[in-house]
Amino acid sequence: MRAALMRILLANANTTEAVTAICAASARAVAAAGTEIVPVTPRFGPAIISSRAENAIAAHGILDCLAEHHEGCDAAILAVSYDTALGAARQLLPIPVIGMTEAACMAACLLGGRFGLVTFSSADLYREVITAHGFAQRLSRIAIVDATPYDAASDPDAVARKVVIAARSLAAEGADAVLLGGAALAGIGTRIQAEVPVPLVDGIAAAVKLAEAMVGLGLPKPRTGGFAAPVGRASLALGDALAAMLARR
Amino acid sequence: MRAALMRILLANANTTEAVTAICAASARAVAAAGTEIVPVTPRFGPAIISSRAENAIAAHGILDCLAEHHEGCDAAILAVSYDTALGAARQLLPIPVIGMTEAACMAACLLGGRFGLVTFSSADLYREVITAHGFAQRLSRIAIVDATPYDAASDPDAVARKVVIAARSLAAEGADAVLLGGAALAGIGTRIQAEVPVPLVDGIAAAVKLAEAMVGLGLPKPRTGGFAAPVGRASLALGDALAAMLARR
Amino acid sequence: MRAALMRILLANANTTEAVTAICAASARAVAAAGTEIVPVTPRFGPAIISSRAENAIAAHGILDCLAEHHEGCDAAILAVSYDTALGAARQLLPIPVIGMTEAACMAACLLGGRFGLVTFSSADLYREVITAHGFAQRLSRIAIVDATPYDAASDPDAVARKVVIAARSLAAEGADAVLLGGAALAGIGTRIQAEVPVPLVDGIAAAVKLAEAMVGLGLPKPRTGGFAAPVGRASLALGDALAAMLARR
Amino acid sequence: MRAALMRILLANANTTEAVTAICAASARAVAAAGTEIVPVTPRFGPAIISSRAENAIAAHGILDCLAEHHEGCDAAILAVSYDTALGAARQLLPIPVIGMTEAACMAACLLGGRFGLVTFSSADLYREVITAHGFAQRLSRIAIVDATPYDAASDPDAVARKVVIAARSLAAEGADAVLLGGAALAGIGTRIQAEVPVPLVDGIAAAVKLAEAMVGLGLPKPRTGGFAAPVGRASLALGDALAAMLARR
Amino acid sequence: MRAALMRILLANANTTEAVTAICAASARAVAAAGTEIVPVTPRFGPAIISSRAENAIAAHGILDCLAEHHEGCDAAILAVSYDTALGAARQLLPIPVIGMTEAACMAACLLGGRFGLVTFSSADLYREVITAHGFAQRLSRIAIVDATPYDAASDPDAVARKVVIAARSLAAEGADAVLLGGAALAGIGTRIQAEVPVPLVDGIAAAVKLAEAMVGLGLPKPRTGGFAAPVGRASLALGDALAAMLARR
Amino acid sequence: MRAALMRILLANANTTEAVTAICAASARAVAAAGTEIVPVTPRFGPAIISSRAENAIAAHGILDCLAEHHEGCDAAILAVSYDTALGAARQLLPIPVIGMTEAACMAACLLGGRFGLVTFSSADLYREVITAHGFAQRLSRIAIVDATPYDAASDPDAVARKVVIAARSLAAEGADAVLLGGAALAGIGTRIQAEVPVPLVDGIAAAVKLAEAMVGLGLPKPRTGGFAAPVGRASLALGDALAAMLARR
Repeated sequence: MRAALMRILLANANTTEAVTAICAASARAVAAAGTEIVPVTPRFGPAIISSRAENAIAAHGILDCLAEHHEGCDAAILAVSYDTALGAARQLLPIPVIGMTEAACMAACLLGGRFGLVTFSSADLYREVITAHGFAQRLSRIAIVDATPYDAASDPDAVARKVVIAARSLAAEGADAVLLGGAALAGIGTRIQAEVPVPLVDGIAAAVKLAEAMVGLGLPKPRTGGFAAPVGRASLALGDALAAMLARR
Repeated sequence: MRAALMRILLANANTTEAVTAICAASARAVAAAGTEIVPVTPRFGPAIISSRAENAIAAHGILDCLAEHHEGCDAAILAVSYDTALGAARQLLPIPVIGMTEAACMAACLLGGRFGLVTFSSADLYREVITAHGFAQRLSRIAIVDATPYDAASDPDAVARKVVIAARSLAAEGADAVLLGGAALAGIGTRIQAEVPVPLVDGIAAAVKLAEAMVGLGLPKPRTGGFAAPVGRASLALGDALAAMLARR
Repeated sequence: MRAALMRILLANANTTEAVTAICAASARAVAAAGTEIVPVTPRFGPAIISSRAENAIAAHGILDCLAEHHEGCDAAILAVSYDTALGAARQLLPIPVIGMTEAACMAACLLGGRFGLVTFSSADLYREVITAHGFAQRLSRIAIVDATPYDAASDPDAVARKVVIAARSLAAEGADAVLLGGAALAGIGTRIQAEVPVPLVDGIAAAVKLAEAMVGLGLPKPRTGGFAAPVGRASLALGDALAAMLARR
Repeated sequence: MRAALMRILLANANTTEAVTAICAASARAVAAAGTEIVPVTPRFGPAIISSRAENAIAAHGILDCLAEHHEGCDAAILAVSYDTALGAARQLLPIPVIGMTEAACMAACLLGGRFGLVTFSSADLYREVITAHGFAQRLSRIAIVDATPYDAASDPDAVARKVVIAARSLAAEGADAVLLGGAALAGIGTRIQAEVPVPLVDGIAAAVKLAEAMVGLGLPKPRTGGFAAPVGRASLALGDALAAMLARR
Repeated sequence: MRAALMRILLANANTTEAVTAICAASARAVAAAGTEIVPVTPRFGPAIISSRAENAIAAHGILDCLAEHHEGCDAAILAVSYDTALGAARQLLPIPVIGMTEAACMAACLLGGRFGLVTFSSADLYREVITAHGFAQRLSRIAIVDATPYDAASDPDAVARKVVIAARSLAAEGADAVLLGGAALAGIGTRIQAEVPVPLVDGIAAAVKLAEAMVGLGLPKPRTGGFAAPVGRASLALGDALAAMLARR
Repeated sequence: MRAALMRILLANANTTEAVTAICAASARAVAAAGTEIVPVTPRFGPAIISSRAENAIAAHGILDCLAEHHEGCDAAILAVSYDTALGAARQLLPIPVIGMTEAACMAACLLGGRFGLVTFSSADLYREVITAHGFAQRLSRIAIVDATPYDAASDPDAVARKVVIAARSLAAEGADAVLLGGAALAGIGTRIQAEVPVPLVDGIAAAVKLAEAMVGLGLPKPRTGGFAAPVGRASLALGDALAAMLARR
C-alpha cells in the first residue's frame, strides 16, 4: 500500500462535525490520486457560523485547530464559506493555506468575467469576504435561495430545483460562472450542472485543486513582512499548540 | 457622592493589564465630568497584538471580555489600535461600540481632508483597518518612528522628539491632521501639540468623545440585518457569558 | 443663572428663517445641558436650495453668515442637507465645523455597515455630498418619499407613515441604519423609531453631538495646508466680516 | 465686415481683470477664424482664488457674472483653474459650459494614458478638482514649480526653464502629457514645447476647442434631472440677472 | 475649387463596407465646412464585431488599415463602438486618434453628471470599454433595445419608438444624457431628439468634433513613454505598411 | 510507453521561437508527471511584443495559433507576459485558458497580501494587465532591473544579482511575494530564491499549475454570455482554423 503523495488538512471553523464530514467528502471527490484529505474540527466555538460575532469567535477556534493538526500536512484548506481567519492562518502556518471562497472566486475568474453566488443566507458576510479578497468588481449578484440546510438534507431535489432557477437567473443577467455557497450545497453542482448554462463552482473543490497547485509550485513562505510567522510572542491561556507557534523563535 | 451619569466600558484586546491602565488614564483625561471609565482586560489571548494571527485570536478574547463585563455600561470602547473584532462587538452588544482607530479617523476627517499616522510599527495592520473602515482615500502616509514601547517608557523625551519630526514631515506633505497610533503614544499628543502645525489625534480620546456622543444620541440597536444581536445560536466550550449572549432568544 | 458651557453656532444656508428655526429646535432637543444653540440665517441667497446652482450660490451666503456670527462660539453646525461649503467653512473658521449630513453618515457608520437615506427629493445632490465625504460604499440606497415639505407640515401623520414604509424597505434590503434627509423630516425620527427595525439618524442631532465631541477633544486648527485659515487675501465687494477674515494676517 | 460665427463667453472667477485679459489672449490665439471671445470678470469675490474658502465664495461671483453676460453667446468657458462652479453653471446656463481644467484633462486623455500637471501652487485644490471630474486615475503627479506669478511676469525665461525641468521629469516618470496649470503659465506651452518630449496642454486652449466642438454638436440642454435649468426658485438679495434666472418659469 | 482644410480618416474595424458608409455619412453630417472624411475598411477580420474574440482579431485589422491609409490625414476616427485598438492606434500613428465611444462619453460628461447608453446588444463589451476609459462611475445604465440592425433598416420608425422609450426611461432614472451605441443607431438621434428630455449623443458625431478640436490644438505626439511611436521593431508576415511603421527608425 | 494524462498547449504571442522554447522548458520543469507541454508560436506578428501596438497585433496572431493547435489539448497557457488576448481566447476555445501573469498574480495572492514585480522594462503594460485583471490594489511596486534579455543570456549571474537586489528591496517595502516578469527571467527564481526573503513567483510555473487545477475541476465552458463560444460569425481573409471557429454553428 502506497503512502499519500500529498496530505491536505481540511479544517472546519464550525464545531459541527457533520459539516466537516460533508466538506471532506466533497474534497475527496476531486482530490488527485495521491492526495489524502485530513479533516479536523475545532475544539470550541460556534456550532454553525451565521454572523460576524460567531465568525470572529470561530477565527480563534480554527487557528487553534490548525496549530494542533497541521504537522505532517503539505497544505491546509479552510472549509468554511467565510474563509474565517484566512490571513491569520497564512501568517501562522508554514504551509500554503487556501480559503474555499477565495479559491472559488479565483476559479470563477479563470472561467469568465463576472460571477454570481447562490446561497441559503448570509449574503452580507459573503459580500464582505469577497470584497476583502478584492473580487467585488467581479461579483454580479448574490441570489438567496429560500431553503435551509435541513431542506437540503430532507428534500434535496426540491432544493436542487431552486438552485437551478437561481443559477439560471444569474447567468441570464450576465454571470459567466456561479459559485455555490455553503456546505449545504456541497456536491450539488455535479448533479445540476447540465441544467445550468454556466459553470457551477464548488468552493471545496476549487480549494483542493488550488492547494495541490500551490504545493506543486513549491514556493517558500515569506520570511519578512506581515505574513512571516510570528516569533517569540507571549500569550495567556491559549491552547498549547497555538501558544507554542506564537512563542517559537 | 453622585453616581456616574454615563459608564463607558474600555476593553483591551491585549492581555497586558499595564496597557489597559495606560489607555484608561488617557480616557479619563478627556471624559466628561459625569463619565465613568470601566477598564477591562481579556482572560486569554496574546500579550501584545503585533500581527494578524494574534489579532484574530484576540478577537475572541475581547468578545469574551465584553460579554462578561458590558452589563451596566452605556457604551464600550475597544482600546486596541486594530479595532479588533469591532463589527462583531457591534453585533453582539446592546450598547454602542467604538473602535479607537475608527474614532480617530472620523475626528481627523472632521478637521481636514487627509490625515497621516505615526506609529512604532505594524503599518500593515493599521493600513488594513483604516482601509476596512473606508478611510484609505483620506490616509496620506503612515510614518514609522524608530522606537519601541520600552523607549517610550524609558526615554519619553527622545521618543517625543522623533514623533514631532515625523508629524511635521506628514504635515509638510499635506496631512491636515496626524493620528498617534498605539498605546505607547497615549498622552503624548498633549505634550507635543504646540510643536506640530496640525492637530494630533489620540484614538482613545476620540473614542471617548464619540462614545459619549452616541450615548447622547440615544439611538436603538438594529433589530434586523447583519448587526442585529445573535439569537438562539449554539456553541461549544465558550465562556459562559459569551455562550449565553449567542444563545439568547 | 449660569452661562452656557458651550455655544454652537447653527448656520442655515437657505435664507428661509422658518427652516432655521426647525433645525434649531431639533438641535436643542439633543444638546447637552450646558450647550447653547445659536441659530443664524444668511443675508442673501436661495430661499430653499434644491439644485446645484442654488447650492453654489448659497456657499457664499453661509460663509458670509459664519464670518459674521462665529465669534464667541465654540463650534459651528451647517444646518443644510448638502453640507454646503463645508470644506471652505472648515478652512475659514477658527472653530470646529460640522456638516449635518457628514455627521449623520458617521453616526450611521458607528451603528452598522450600510445605511439608507429617506428624503423628499434631490437624491442626486445627496448622493454627491455623501460620495464627496467618502461614504458612497456605505450608502445602500436613497428612497424618495412622495411628499412635499408642505405635506409634512399639513398632514404629518400621513408623511410619517410613508417614511416608515420607506425606512422599513431600506432595512429589509440590508440597511443597518437609515438617515432622515432634509429639514422637513426633522424631529420625525423620534416619533416613528419604534416602528422601524433599524436606527433612524437625524442629521442635526448627529451634528450637535459631534460638535460637542470635537469641542471636548480640544484640538487646534491646522496651521499649514489646505485647511489653514486664509492669510492676507484681497477681495472685492464682499461683506465686511468675510473680507476681514480673508485679509487677516 | 463679417459678424462672428460663434461667440464664446470667457468668464473669470477671480476679480482681477489682468488675469481675465491673459486668459482671453490665450483663448484668441487658438480660437477658430469665426470665433469671438467675450471676456468677463465678476463684480465681487476674491482677487485671486488660492484656497477652498475663496473658491466657494468665487462660485457665486462667477455665476452672477455668467447670468449677467451669457446672452448672445453660444458657449461659456470658465477661465479659472479650479473649474469653479462648473456643475452649477452647467445647470444654470442654456449654453454649453466648459471648465478649463476638465477640458485639459480630456485633451490629455485623448493623447495618452496618464498625465502630469505643473503649477506654482495649490496642488491640493487641483487634485480635488481633477478627482471630482473622475480623472484621478489618469493623474500621474503634480509638480510644483518654485516660482510666483510675479516671477512669471518679471523673468519669464527663468520660469520657463523651471517648467521645462518639471515637465521633463513628469515625462520621465511616465506621464504621456503635461497640463500647465494657472493663468501665470498661459501661453508658455507654445514657447517650450520643443524642449519637452510630451505634449503640453494649456487649459484655456483646450476649453476653447471643446467649446467649439460642443457648439458644433448642437445638442440641447437636459430638460430633466440635476442639470435642467432651475424653475421658479425664490431667492434673497441676489443680483438681478441671477435672481431672474433662478425665478424663470 | 478649394481643397479640404482638414482630412479625417474614418476607419472601421468591421470588414462590412456598408457599415463604414453609414458611419461616413454620419460623420459628414456634422463635419465642419472644410473637413473631409476619408472612410476606410480593413482588408481582413470579422464582418461585424459582436464579441471579445472578434474584437481582438479586428484590432489587427484596423491597425493594418490605419497604417495603410493615414498618410495625408490630420486625424483618425475609429468608427467602431468598442473603440477597437484605440490605445494601440494612438501609439502607432503620428496623428490624433479618436474613438467614437470615448468621444461620446466625453461629450456626455460635458453635458451633465451621468449618462445612459441605448444599444441593440453587447452591453458587456460596451461596459468594458467605458470602464477601461475611466467613465464607469458616470454610466448610469445600459438599456438594451429589443431590435436588430435589420429591423433598424427595414422598420426604422418602430425602432425609433423603442429607442425613445429606452432613452426616456434612462432620463427618468437620472441620466443627464444618453449615448446611442452602434452604427445601426447612427443618425437616429437627430430624428428623435425632440421626444427625449436629455441630449442624445452620437459617437461618430462626437468623434468628428473632438478630432477637429485636437487638430486645432496642434499638439505634438509624445516622443517618450508608452504612446511614443514604435522604433525598429521586427515582425513576421504583417502587411507592408504596418510592418514598416513598426520597423521605422 | 504511457500516453500523457493531460496535454497543455503553451502558446506564445511573440513570433520568436527561441522565447517559446524557453517558456516550454520552464513549463516542463513544474508540470506534473503525466502532463505534456505542447509549445506553439504564431505564424505572424511582432518578433517580441514591447508596446501596446505590437500587443494588439499579436492578439490576432495568438488567436490564430490557438485556433490552429488547440485540438487534442486539455488546457492552454498564454506564454506572454501581457496575457495577450486572454479574454478573447477564453471565449474562443472550448478548453480552459490561463494567462501567465494572471496566474502569477493569483499565486501571489494566495501567499500574502501585496506583491511586487521585477522586470526589465514595460512597467506600463504590466501595470495595465494587472489592473485589468483586478489586482492593482495588490501590486506594491514594479521594479525595473537595468538589464536586457541579451544580458540575461550572456551574463546570467550579473543579472541574477540585480534581480536579487530588486526583489529584496520590494520585500523590504512590504511585498509578501515578488513576480518575475518576462521570459528572460524564466527559471531564475529557483536559482535565487534562497537569497530573497519572500517567494519568487514565475508566471509560466503558476500558469501550468493553475491549468492542471482547472482541468482537474472539470468545469464546462459558459454556454451563454460574453464568454460563450462565437456562433455563425462571418469573417474576411482570416486563417482557416480561426475563421472556422468563428463560423461554427
